[in-house]
Amino acid sequence: MIVVQKYGGSSIADKERILNVANKIKKRIEKGDKVVVIVSAMGNTTDNLIRLAKSLSKNPHPREMDMLLTTGEQISIALLSIALIDLGIKAKSFNAFQLNIKTTHDFTKARIKDIDSNKILKELELNSVVIVAGFQGVTENGDLTTLGRGGSDTTAVAIAAKLGSHCEIYSDVDGIYTSDPRIIPNAKKLKYITYDDALELSSLGAKVLHSRSVELAKKYNVKLYCASSFSEKEGTWVIDKLPEWLEQPVVSGATIEKDQVKITLNNLPKDNKVIEKIFEILSDKKINIDMISMITSNKNIHLSFSVLNDLRKTIEESIKTIDSSIDISYEGMFDKVSIVGVGMKSSPGVAARFFKVLTDNGIIPELVTTSEIKISVLVSKKNSEKLLKKLVDEFSLGG
Amino acid sequence: MIVVQKYGGSSIADKERILNVANKIKKRIEKGDKVVVIVSAMGNTTDNLIRLAKSLSKNPHPREMDMLLTTGEQISIALLSIALIDLGIKAKSFNAFQLNIKTTHDFTKARIKDIDSNKILKELELNSVVIVAGFQGVTENGDLTTLGRGGSDTTAVAIAAKLGSHCEIYSDVDGIYTSDPRIIPNAKKLKYITYDDALELSSLGAKVLHSRSVELAKKYNVKLYCASSFSEKEGTWVIDKLPEWLEQPVVSGATIEKDQVKITLNNLPKDNKVIEKIFEILSDKKINIDMISMITSNKNIHLSFSVLNDLRKTIEESIKTIDSSIDISYEGMFDKVSIVGVGMKSSPGVAARFFKVLTDNGIIPELVTTSEIKISVLVSKKNSEKLLKKLVDEFSLGG
Repeated sequence: MIVVQKYGGSSIADKERILNVANKIKKRIEKGDKVVVIVSAMGNTTDNLIRLAKSLSKNPHPREMDMLLTTGEQISIALLSIALIDLGIKAKSFNAFQLNIKTTHDFTKARIKDIDSNKILKELELNSVVIVAGFQGVTENGDLTTLGRGGSDTTAVAIAAKLGSHCEIYSDVDGIYTSDPRIIPNAKKLKYITYDDALELSSLGAKVLHSRSVELAKKYNVKLYCASSFSEKEGTWVIDKLPEWLEQPVVSGATIEKDQVKITLNNLPKDNKVIEKIFEILSDKKINIDMISMITSNKNIHLSFSVLNDLRKTIEESIKTIDSSIDISYEGMFDKVSIVGVGMKSSPGVAARFFKVLTDNGIIPELVTTSEIKISVLVSKKNSEKLLKKLVDEFSLGG
Repeated sequence: MIVVQKYGGSSIADKERILNVANKIKKRIEKGDKVVVIVSAMGNTTDNLIRLAKSLSKNPHPREMDMLLTTGEQISIALLSIALIDLGIKAKSFNAFQLNIKTTHDFTKARIKDIDSNKILKELELNSVVIVAGFQGVTENGDLTTLGRGGSDTTAVAIAAKLGSHCEIYSDVDGIYTSDPRIIPNAKKLKYITYDDALELSSLGAKVLHSRSVELAKKYNVKLYCASSFSEKEGTWVIDKLPEWLEQPVVSGATIEKDQVKITLNNLPKDNKVIEKIFEILSDKKINIDMISMITSNKNIHLSFSVLNDLRKTIEESIKTIDSSIDISYEGMFDKVSIVGVGMKSSPGVAARFFKVLTDNGIIPELVTTSEIKISVLVSKKNSEKLLKKLVDEFSLGG
């Protein structure tokens, strides 16, 4: 069976960890599997390279930045290959050039257009472990690119899609939990989760998988398996539909995102053009605003939304460029608490149960948003963890 | 004018030095030159990568070693390019893949077969500084290779040959001297030296240029210019023939190579086969033996040669594999003192003057070798620096 595995930067951060990963791969080979491995840059390599570049230029040229950053993954593939060969396992490393991982021209955030899987298949036939540099690609002109955050996961899923295999993603986290185990000690590890729920959870602060790779996995129906590279514990499968025999949960997980502020634009003219411009300029700056809520009075519109506190300054500056007289007010800090579950669609009354938890605990949310598979509230920091715990109890997410 | 420049690892070892090099290049651009720059890996990068690889395997696989080591130069080209662009100079970096620097398949010691100069010329036409990763190449299969010691110099000379331009080699040494200035404080910097003399000097311990790049420069008649990247001092031109107007020196330089041992194989059978085998096995191990001297008696042959003390063990082990009864004896430590000069060919009596210096100073050499343009003697460590000084005086090499 062909297996595609991806190991993150912390899984290969030093000599011992590289050897640990090499031994894990060796076991799979001895089982008779054919293994393709995608690796990220070791530990803090990428951050160190970025720091070096920024010491030379405040705005390093994006093409040259990608030339620089792709070296991190190349170091990893070579070292892992050296370790495997030393264990007596046939292995060969490849960078994006060698596998013709074609991407768009968007330096530092390129998207994969195609991968030539022939070279991979040929090497697998020769019983070689194929070790691939994640995160990187090459344009039609032969320029090197990088795929942006979570890029190595994307490389792994794209290769698994090409090879028609599943994709195992190893990191320092041993699976996807119903909630953050640091806050909810009895949070349960999920054996299975749907792509949709995993996407919502990851966009709501559960940082195991990058939403981009889950989207790609969903698109090509690549089964994902997330587990820890440091233990043999069973991880979590991310798949299209939960197995029939499994009791279908209404809610898959509850998350908390900290340090949000609520921004309110008061007394905007009752004219959609200004609001359009505001959304446009924030989108241009790649700022994700969230939990948008609008109140319309006779003459005016009041617009509120939540954002990470860090973005507050940028947002104010951007909006002031449209009209410096816009009245902006802030409230904060808040935390955002959410529940997620594709089961909510077919299970009415989830919202009612959610709001009963709020009322029973005397918590009044600042903002509320709901979708078919998610409910989020913005609440004061002093109430947020309490609310999370109560929701975990209400929806049986504890162990 | 197209200028090819090469900067060594110590010239770009940190942020300040990279900026210094960027500013040097900027000046040339402002003069109207078109510049191609070849760089090595920063400072100790290559050594650190080798150490990392050796911590994973005693004998890291050569293909993977080259995959690893080529990252060093790629980091340098990206950073230098970032620095130049930040100074307002158009620049673009290229690795071996992108310039199609085709080499043989000999990992860790590949030889350049061809370079596609079209991409370089196209970028120069667009007024871009072209920054090229030295030391690396790519095989016909698309595997990455490295060129071995002095590889970046070789890349630079090969590109200069392709472009029909001269080649400037910047390092932490400001030119080629008649002798080692650390021992001979009044050693003169040469304005010009021939390829042949530079080759002999570099093979005799003057470590400014790698003989391989000088050989290549000689083959394609590429004028070399060696100077320091840390000063504006005039350097040394390495060329085919000294300018006519220049007083032609008989001897261009005097060198010292330290820590040699004399190895003697006693009572070898008077049968060339054994000696052939000895030379063969040492050549296989890439051991350069030197100052070979043979004495034939009625029944036997005694063979002496000099080598660097470090190689003594390897040589003994290699020779014992041919015949464990071979009688090997050592004498050491010695230093090797040499004079070099193409002018010796047309100027009889140089050897006589050399031996008079020996006799006048009561120095008896252990071994002597001479060629058309060089005389070398192996002498005791206590006499070596004195001899060097006397030779500098005798042949007017002092300032």
